[in-house]
Amino acid sequence: MFTFRHYCVDLHHAPQQPKQDATDIRFADVIIHGNAAFTQVPHIALLGVPQHIGVERNGGRGGAGAAPEAIRAWLNRLTISNGTDSISSDIRIADYGNINTNGKTLEEIHEAQQEAVTQLLREGAFVLVLGGGHDIAYPNGAALGSLGKTVGIINFDAHLDVRPFNEHGRHSGSPFRQLIEDPAVHIPGGCFAEFGIQSFSAAAAHMQYVLENGHHITMMHHIHANGFTESLSNTWNAISQAENVYCSFDIDGVSSAYAPGASAPSADGFTPRNMFDAALFIGAQKQTKLVDIVEVNPFYDLDARTSKLAATIAAHCIWARAQALCM
Amino acid sequence: MFTFRHYCVDLHHAPQQPKQDATDIRFADVIIHGNAAFTQVPHIALLGVPQHIGVERNGGRGGAGAAPEAIRAWLNRLTISNGTDSISSDIRIADYGNINTNGKTLEEIHEAQQEAVTQLLREGAFVLVLGGGHDIAYPNGAALGSLGKTVGIINFDAHLDVRPFNEHGRHSGSPFRQLIEDPAVHIPGGCFAEFGIQSFSAAAAHMQYVLENGHHITMMHHIHANGFTESLSNTWNAISQAENVYCSFDIDGVSSAYAPGASAPSADGFTPRNMFDAALFIGAQKQTKLVDIVEVNPFYDLDARTSKLAATIAAHCIWARAQALCM
Amino acid sequence: MFTFRHYCVDLHHAPQQPKQDATDIRFADVIIHGNAAFTQVPHIALLGVPQHIGVERNGGRGGAGAAPEAIRAWLNRLTISNGTDSISSDIRIADYGNINTNGKTLEEIHEAQQEAVTQLLREGAFVLVLGGGHDIAYPNGAALGSLGKTVGIINFDAHLDVRPFNEHGRHSGSPFRQLIEDPAVHIPGGCFAEFGIQSFSAAAAHMQYVLENGHHITMMHHIHANGFTESLSNTWNAISQAENVYCSFDIDGVSSAYAPGASAPSADGFTPRNMFDAALFIGAQKQTKLVDIVEVNPFYDLDARTSKLAATIAAHCIWARAQALCM
Repeated sequence: MFTFRHYCVDLHHAPQQPKQDATDIRFADVIIHGNAAFTQVPHIALLGVPQHIGVERNGGRGGAGAAPEAIRAWLNRLTISNGTDSISSDIRIADYGNINTNGKTLEEIHEAQQEAVTQLLREGAFVLVLGGGHDIAYPNGAALGSLGKTVGIINFDAHLDVRPFNEHGRHSGSPFRQLIEDPAVHIPGGCFAEFGIQSFSAAAAHMQYVLENGHHITMMHHIHANGFTESLSNTWNAISQAENVYCSFDIDGVSSAYAPGASAPSADGFTPRNMFDAALFIGAQKQTKLVDIVEVNPFYDLDARTSKLAATIAAHCIWARAQALCM
Repeated sequence: MFTFRHYCVDLHHAPQQPKQDATDIRFADVIIHGNAAFTQVPHIALLGVPQHIGVERNGGRGGAGAAPEAIRAWLNRLTISNGTDSISSDIRIADYGNINTNGKTLEEIHEAQQEAVTQLLREGAFVLVLGGGHDIAYPNGAALGSLGKTVGIINFDAHLDVRPFNEHGRHSGSPFRQLIEDPAVHIPGGCFAEFGIQSFSAAAAHMQYVLENGHHITMMHHIHANGFTESLSNTWNAISQAENVYCSFDIDGVSSAYAPGASAPSADGFTPRNMFDAALFIGAQKQTKLVDIVEVNPFYDLDARTSKLAATIAAHCIWARAQALCM
Repeated sequence: MFTFRHYCVDLHHAPQQPKQDATDIRFADVIIHGNAAFTQVPHIALLGVPQHIGVERNGGRGGAGAAPEAIRAWLNRLTISNGTDSISSDIRIADYGNINTNGKTLEEIHEAQQEAVTQLLREGAFVLVLGGGHDIAYPNGAALGSLGKTVGIINFDAHLDVRPFNEHGRHSGSPFRQLIEDPAVHIPGGCFAEFGIQSFSAAAAHMQYVLENGHHITMMHHIHANGFTESLSNTWNAISQAENVYCSFDIDGVSSAYAPGASAPSADGFTPRNMFDAALFIGAQKQTKLVDIVEVNPFYDLDARTSKLAATIAAHCIWARAQALCM
């Protein structure tokens, strides 16, 4: 049924360390892989985009292409329970492997990603995409936009990522400008939110671009001052005026103490707890159709600290969506 | 007088960097070592258990065996004052070196540890044990239980450590199940507390095991929500219904940003300040007879960050007990 | 006009990565270098002191001598805007390179530093000095004291740095004792403040020395308990009784999770946000004439985390002063 299969490279190896212990169920025990993933619509779909072409086009350091495998390795080892509540066995979670990036241009990869994500969304799956650089936000947002409903976006990030194209074309710093300016994506005024933007990391002209398009920016220092929960609530109230919501977690929005393995780390930023709270809240909202986690860079990671963080964000998000589906 | 001497390997080298400066007294200047330690009952006794056999039996990565020496090296360099208040020279602090682990099985090491700790406790010493893996919690708790009084336990940890034995027998994930099920250790209902347990790191069946035995679990996300001080106070009120208290600090309960050198680090967790506050509070309570610090793994540490943290937790604990003894 | 030129080694290379993009202005685009810096009085002057002689005299580990270049490299890459507010093009920011340390003793370097800083202060510039070890606080404070007005000092630090000279003479642990005891520097009672001092890192006798001289100490655990903003406000109210204020940021006052590249890192400490808030507040006060950032140690840094933090503290400070000058 999933015709996007030809875009994907399945992960042929078995998931790491399935426990097969009924008293200690891990994500590796419940995620469906390979041929089985294509037989039935999942409730929750995973997809990887293992490339950092857009990061390098933006002058950044490579490595994010290794993130999907690094994150999956840790996700597989996590238990499926948040306290005493486990993910129901009624919830079908399928991993569709990675978009085939072999010998492709960034534009070709994005096209394949957009088609694959669109199909999963059309089938009704909640889609979790593991980047890759932040350039993957464009095909993700465009996929959601192609459903014909209005789109709200929240971007957890130290940076705005609304730069113009450079001499290489699109890149990891340009996706949200692409989405704002794409006539096929209907983002109502105020329904795009930048969340966690850091001082001295965003150009004033780019700040103005976002604001002049009628959208929201919440600076990191305002989040520190006003509290994470209240700031997120205010932002959600704005973007949830749209029919469907897409949430992007750029790991460099987290302080580099917690997320050293990022393409462009910053001293200040979110805590892991902030990200888990956000994933629980956003994953549980039925309007949320699509989440991604981007810019994890295993080449610069320390003892897999950042991959484990990203995996735990994914776990919270999947768990929250699973709980919401069972209510 | 201390017949456990034959269990121990003294640290033959002099303590590192004694300052011998009357205006700047360090722990190295006041801790009694070697033969002198055995001549008189100390107020506070240090003991190391340098092995990671239980960690490896549990599928973890070795290294915790190097922790006692790494922690002592930094403890020796700290000043003995918390602000303007120094540890009184009336307080006798003795380091009994390490339990001899040379060529021993984990079971033999635990037996020697239990006997040595029991004797120190019977003599009235406050005992601080430096692990080693978390398996050392079993002989520690059993030693306290052997005094014939009821036992309260607080475990600062990301994980429950109530797994059944595996094919190797006891291991670093099993100590609290051993204690709960040991008829020689009387832990009244509600007097064992897991504190700081993390989502997706504890199996639902193990959570239920603790709760069905009538004990307490405080999840890390509840501590974030309710505040550390109030959460700890509630937990203390429960466990202090027992006559004697044992407190175990698993360093992996601290966020990996602050404690990268752990056998099984996690992104979320306690801050150093949380641990210092806990050590001050718990060290000052006369019911507390025994504290350990476990799972520091110098093989994976960064610039001794975790060993220094563990040493500073130890310093707060020793200082608080010394102050309480002088009141 | 600047006769201190012979003390300085200009940075001959061009600033790193000037963007020359009018929509994305970086510090590299606005900081004046080389001959041009000497033609006119700047509003804000940068100066480096690339040595760690005082650190090594104090038994510490070398590396801080590499900090001025490491910090500048990251400062140059930051945008000049805090949110939508950019540094005005009316503000002249000049980098005077480094004090020439080649073949000099620590005493000779300090003398040159003091003369250079004094001249910049006399010309009315706001001076930001990049260390180097904390020994540079003595010539900095002495320069401000030589203006004939009373001096207030706030030292953000885990340590007191009021040790006596040792067998090598002055060192990185002695500068504030030197300033307190220098009859040419008039620090009124209560106008020297130690802020963020950590338990078990300061000798009781040194604590008493500061207090008996009538000055202030705010322990890190009191800042955790009372809040950073209120603690800083109380301290500012005390030291701002003096006419001119000098602020020293020792990077080891920041938790080692955020600032691993320090000469003497500690587990507990300030967050990056604390330092940014402090830099914004203190940089904006007209009484503040002089700021330094010391003890960054690139030899022990992780992926430039600490140099980037120091650069971002500098950016907040420069921006705040620029805003204040435009009001």
